[in-house]
Amino acid sequence: MERIYFQAGPTTLPKEVMNRAKSEWDDFKETGLNIMEHSHRGTTYEEIHEQAKTLMRKLLDIPQTHDVLFLQGGASLQFAMLPMNLLSPGKTAKYVLTGSWSEKAFKEAAKIGPSEAVVSGKDTKYRTLPEMNYEPSDQDAYLHITSNNTIFGTQWPDLDAFSHPNLVADMSSDIMSKPFNVSNYALIYAGAQKNLGPAGVTAVIIRKDLLKENESLPSILSYQVHAKNRSLYNTPPVYSIYLLNLVLQWIEEQGGVKELEVKNKKKAEIIYNAIDSSDGFYKGYATPESRSHMNITFTLSDPELEKRFIKESEESGIFGLKGHRSVGGFRASIYNAVPEKSCQKLAEFMLHFQGKYGK
Amino acid sequence: MERIYFQAGPTTLPKEVMNRAKSEWDDFKETGLNIMEHSHRGTTYEEIHEQAKTLMRKLLDIPQTHDVLFLQGGASLQFAMLPMNLLSPGKTAKYVLTGSWSEKAFKEAAKIGPSEAVVSGKDTKYRTLPEMNYEPSDQDAYLHITSNNTIFGTQWPDLDAFSHPNLVADMSSDIMSKPFNVSNYALIYAGAQKNLGPAGVTAVIIRKDLLKENESLPSILSYQVHAKNRSLYNTPPVYSIYLLNLVLQWIEEQGGVKELEVKNKKKAEIIYNAIDSSDGFYKGYATPESRSHMNITFTLSDPELEKRFIKESEESGIFGLKGHRSVGGFRASIYNAVPEKSCQKLAEFMLHFQGKYGK
Repeated sequence: MERIYFQAGPTTLPKEVMNRAKSEWDDFKETGLNIMEHSHRGTTYEEIHEQAKTLMRKLLDIPQTHDVLFLQGGASLQFAMLPMNLLSPGKTAKYVLTGSWSEKAFKEAAKIGPSEAVVSGKDTKYRTLPEMNYEPSDQDAYLHITSNNTIFGTQWPDLDAFSHPNLVADMSSDIMSKPFNVSNYALIYAGAQKNLGPAGVTAVIIRKDLLKENESLPSILSYQVHAKNRSLYNTPPVYSIYLLNLVLQWIEEQGGVKELEVKNKKKAEIIYNAIDSSDGFYKGYATPESRSHMNITFTLSDPELEKRFIKESEESGIFGLKGHRSVGGFRASIYNAVPEKSCQKLAEFMLHFQGKYGK
Repeated sequence: MERIYFQAGPTTLPKEVMNRAKSEWDDFKETGLNIMEHSHRGTTYEEIHEQAKTLMRKLLDIPQTHDVLFLQGGASLQFAMLPMNLLSPGKTAKYVLTGSWSEKAFKEAAKIGPSEAVVSGKDTKYRTLPEMNYEPSDQDAYLHITSNNTIFGTQWPDLDAFSHPNLVADMSSDIMSKPFNVSNYALIYAGAQKNLGPAGVTAVIIRKDLLKENESLPSILSYQVHAKNRSLYNTPPVYSIYLLNLVLQWIEEQGGVKELEVKNKKKAEIIYNAIDSSDGFYKGYATPESRSHMNITFTLSDPELEKRFIKESEESGIFGLKGHRSVGGFRASIYNAVPEKSCQKLAEFMLHFQGKYGK
């Protein structure tokens, strides 16, 4: 029986990417080595490194005003690097709270310097995205948003709707899922393990005027140092960047982010329809206007049935549906690499399960 | 023609490890996924995570007083994390300078707090390891050494010879190459890409009494946070740790670090003999008593011949011999995964080249 997976990440990579990497395993470009065995200072690797940057630029239409960096440490390291680099004396870092990850980002910034949560959806238990009624101030170091909230299953519907001179976004869980205007952002960061590749590499897109030398900052934590060294200041995670590059090629073959937006919307609708047409048997956690196209959260009206749902879904070859402990219920993560037919199979299972246990 | 490689890292992994990883590529333990596609919170990955830690403990005989962590960011991030965590007010970080990497570590610590180079081999252009005549002081936060110096090709012959209550070592380039007494150390760190696996994971061994909560430190930069969360505070570099675990299994199959020490010594001797018996045609860079068993540095008495040496070695299928730009000449890196027969082949080539161009 074929297994399908919906876990929140690390998660499945496109089958075409995995096949390509396997075919190049023993002998990358007739060198007799896997690419991970190559020096990061050699032309064989450097070509991939630059190609991945070029493809990032092309797919997201990144303007020349912005630089692309490949770092390590995931979004969690960015929670610290961001204020360490951008929160200058006399300024305050501003945060929009839309879930656990933005709370974490805010909490880490507060260790570095003055930080303030200016908009929050906490009073709705993060079911609904808050109204963005914030007016930028001269005192703002930056305004930080989280574009998609994996745990609660909410996602800002329009990434071009925010207006701030130094807008910063954690796009770890929805980068490359739809087009947006990069010029609108001062800095974007994304851990790779949802839509970009395997765990171990973080993409950062930064406006070049923010790259300032800071002698008191550890070199490894300075965006300027990484930019100056083309993300080769220290040994990069060679294999993760190789796979990221293959994922970017796959995105291009899919028709780019515009086409992926259409596909992702359709995939999400299949599952939301199964929820909405269940007559209350399934309940969506996020309110409809805040729903994510990446992580679909729902519960069963009868909590007793939830264990049974997991058990029977796994018996049907469907894995990774258990919701985050802070929300409970279920979560279907349908990142770029999850095909439409997996969403159909889940919807069919949901219907079947309802037929068996619903009133 | 079979190619052999001697680059300084990232570098070749054991063939057995690469074959095993390839055989598990499509379907890890009948899950239909590669291990990198598994959630780091699932039992499939967790088993590997714990197994790697257990094997690290076993192979290095790590006592219960010490914890093993798997982090990201390489040694370069450790240059910052170390003083951020261990350099408390009123104390001074002490450094032993034996090459470019210890200089970098020292420079980064000086950004965090009072730091002092107490012993240095700089006046010999790092050809010779300095005399360790340093007396520990109550003011020392720690004493930092670099066990092996990749660029200059020197290596401390006895890792048990140092005496300091808080001894810290960067063992990135020779960890697992020979046994030593871990109890003697407060903290050891090692980027994986020489002897442990691919780039992207860093092993840290830390004495537990040093794990102190520090609310003002970013969570991702706190050893205590990583230890408390069993190196699962954030998404770990799943695939790098999977390969690290396979490399550790391979080390065990080789007979452990004690057996590797014998092999490494023999491998190094083959190449040093080619240098020493060349009647001055080849010149070792490091002085004999400081010679590394991991990185063998040498030059040709006639610099004109150096380009020819690289060209003809590559024609013979031997790659990665170009020395670091700060030393020039050649460097043969012979980490654990480099087999003895590659060293023999290099020695044969050196003899052949000398026969052709020597007087």
